[in-house]
Amino acid sequence: MSVSSKIKIILVNPSHPGNIGAAARAMKTMGLEHLYLVKPKYFPHVDATARAAGADDILESAIITDSLADALKGSSVVFGTSVRLRDLSLPKVTPKEAAQIIIKEEKHSVAIVFGRENNGLSNDELEQCNYHLYIPTNPNFSSLNLAAAVQLIAYEIKIIQQSIAPPATDVQKLANAEEMQSFYQHLQQILVMIKFLDLKNPRKVLSRLKILFNRARVQKNEINILRGILSAIQLRLK
Amino acid sequence: MSVSSKIKIILVNPSHPGNIGAAARAMKTMGLEHLYLVKPKYFPHVDATARAAGADDILESAIITDSLADALKGSSVVFGTSVRLRDLSLPKVTPKEAAQIIIKEEKHSVAIVFGRENNGLSNDELEQCNYHLYIPTNPNFSSLNLAAAVQLIAYEIKIIQQSIAPPATDVQKLANAEEMQSFYQHLQQILVMIKFLDLKNPRKVLSRLKILFNRARVQKNEINILRGILSAIQLRLK
Repeated sequence: MSVSSKIKIILVNPSHPGNIGAAARAMKTMGLEHLYLVKPKYFPHVDATARAAGADDILESAIITDSLADALKGSSVVFGTSVRLRDLSLPKVTPKEAAQIIIKEEKHSVAIVFGRENNGLSNDELEQCNYHLYIPTNPNFSSLNLAAAVQLIAYEIKIIQQSIAPPATDVQKLANAEEMQSFYQHLQQILVMIKFLDLKNPRKVLSRLKILFNRARVQKNEINILRGILSAIQLRLK
Repeated sequence: MSVSSKIKIILVNPSHPGNIGAAARAMKTMGLEHLYLVKPKYFPHVDATARAAGADDILESAIITDSLADALKGSSVVFGTSVRLRDLSLPKVTPKEAAQIIIKEEKHSVAIVFGRENNGLSNDELEQCNYHLYIPTNPNFSSLNLAAAVQLIAYEIKIIQQSIAPPATDVQKLANAEEMQSFYQHLQQILVMIKFLDLKNPRKVLSRLKILFNRARVQKNEINILRGILSAIQLRLK
């Protein structure tokens, strides 16, 4: 599997079909091919095709999903992109650092998530990511076009692929997005059961726990231990 | 004089006014400001303004000339951009190398020249350049959008200006070794209580959990949540 072929580009709720086309073009110029669209406002659309400027194959094979979680299925290393320095506990990486991580984690499927044109990714969406990919911009004008952001990241991946022979990676298999989702659901269930969590006001605690575990990049065997612990608690409380 | 302020971006005969606007936006996001247009087909134009998305000041102060030579007046270091590997005797540089040269030649005014959407720069125009700035692309699809090319170069200049200083890191305080120790003791106690852990053979599970949490670099506020969960389990089981 080549590095490019394991990378998904995910656009969340893009409003302007032109941006979808321009993103497809940006991807193809740098050798990326897998485009996912989470509830695009308009797609397919003539503006998307026009701006793709020949990258029609990327548009035709684009996969449309109803949620970010669906688009993330099968991905183990997830980057959430933003031009704002958010106060998150996710590790913050530059485009170049992200590209280095992608090369290093050569065995793992990667997703790079781009938010809405107007207001980026929600906190809930960022909590599904392992890294906060921060693109440095002019502090007085950080209005980076969506396709331009895709272009920059795709470029860094292309550059690093050309310049670096991939080093050997860790053999431990990372848990994928679905496994993490199931774990979080199970965890929430237990937290409610032990009355640690009030579902009327669950957000902060769960978010913090998600960020903690996502930061750790949980491995498959570790997920098994964590799930085992949750099941054991469940059993005792019955 | 800041590095950015000595840099001119020159677009030669752009056909699509949308690209001019998008180039202005790309420049401004990365802190560049001086745009030169050599015989643009349409300018000013509503499409340029729309795609500038707020970078109107760049468009308003853009300087229009009749020839590349006019636009180059005053510039000492000139880069001619292309996505094709041409057989020129100019030194060939990557975007990153160009950015390094721009920083190194800090006293000199710089021009970065971008050719037509369809057929780039003529040989005559490239001969007015000191360097051939080559942007690597997919050999099977090198159709990089004009504004995307401007974006990539402007980005590399921005990155090198920050001298690859990583963005400010998170201020959250990490838990210290004693806090982690107490947490692990508490965790062990609960794991025994729920019969997930047999103290006669505890080692592997506990070690794996420690490795997981240590890798996450747990913060003080997160330790409080984790301890809270353990206490809640304890309470329910009594």
